[in-house]
Amino acid sequence: MAEEIKATNITWHQGIVTREDRERLNGHQGAVIWFTGLPSSGKSTVAHALEYELFKRGCRTYVLDGDNIRHGLNKDLGFSPEDREENIRRIGEVAKLFADAGIIVLTAFISPYRADREKARKLNPKNFIEVYVKCDLAVCEQRDPKGLYKKARRGEIQEFTGVSAPYEEPENPEIAIDTGGLSVDECVNLIIRYLEDHDIIKKS
Amino acid sequence: MAEEIKATNITWHQGIVTREDRERLNGHQGAVIWFTGLPSSGKSTVAHALEYELFKRGCRTYVLDGDNIRHGLNKDLGFSPEDREENIRRIGEVAKLFADAGIIVLTAFISPYRADREKARKLNPKNFIEVYVKCDLAVCEQRDPKGLYKKARRGEIQEFTGVSAPYEEPENPEIAIDTGGLSVDECVNLIIRYLEDHDIIKKS
Repeated sequence: MAEEIKATNITWHQGIVTREDRERLNGHQGAVIWFTGLPSSGKSTVAHALEYELFKRGCRTYVLDGDNIRHGLNKDLGFSPEDREENIRRIGEVAKLFADAGIIVLTAFISPYRADREKARKLNPKNFIEVYVKCDLAVCEQRDPKGLYKKARRGEIQEFTGVSAPYEEPENPEIAIDTGGLSVDECVNLIIRYLEDHDIIKKS
Repeated sequence: MAEEIKATNITWHQGIVTREDRERLNGHQGAVIWFTGLPSSGKSTVAHALEYELFKRGCRTYVLDGDNIRHGLNKDLGFSPEDREENIRRIGEVAKLFADAGIIVLTAFISPYRADREKARKLNPKNFIEVYVKCDLAVCEQRDPKGLYKKARRGEIQEFTGVSAPYEEPENPEIAIDTGGLSVDECVNLIIRYLEDHDIIKKS
């Protein structure tokens, strides 16, 4: 943080609040926790449960997901490969702003392309944590809470990841969680432990 | 905040952290402080000085300005009327996310069109504070720290607000500050008083 603002009429000096200042105030580091996986793999569920746990510990967090992004910032984008790329580009940029604000931001999007996820990582060189929400296609398809797999199988939805559009698995994710075998709490605890071990949050 | 997460293997219930929860944790409300005015009117300077003051009071804040938006999220946009509209649309959407995260977000962009600012206001019905950074064109042009007015006068920059592109003054801004007559500190104090009087932040 720069020097005190001078109380005169002419100075245009300014105090700049840095990421480090904000992290000090918050008592934890800013970070991007990037969930990726098939539709219905549990990305959003785990992200919100993790946020809840972090919030209880007094951390500043925010979840970016389809609800607040696809109906807002990215409502002009569809599901073509080009639009998916721009969707993820913008999410990577917004995540960067939140991390710079000292917040632990959780993104919960299919983000099917490896190259797009790598771009998001490059934008966020500090504390980018890719979480592969691994789950067999059969299990995801059985869950199908919104009936989207069924519609995709009937051809009523085009370019649906896992059915008619590709999903490229992460090769070196920081964390992989199998939501077919683990409970939500177990998934959350794995990620919490990672954050503690990497001094992103304090041990509770 | 919802009930405790059930520690069983099957529940997909989740605690949802709300804006109100975050505001309670932060000790102040989320808000959008929307600076608008001519190039070199002092938007960014006042925004950063205000952020510094708020930070000293323990508030969670963030400034969106040309430096972090035009080179990032909106680097695909130019200065045509359509691109300016999309620029402001995206900033309004990102500001909404930050306010929802319980943060006092300050946006420092020319935002020359009344209709675009109104859209940003509609997106943010709670605590949208339009700050008109009023300053005579002659004064702005004299400051011209980056020599942009000079270039615009020579025709080297097209569609430059105040010279070759229009600026539509706010009709009913929450706050108007004349940076030609007031010091930076005086501008900051006016805005701080507004925030205190409207219970967005606590009186110090």
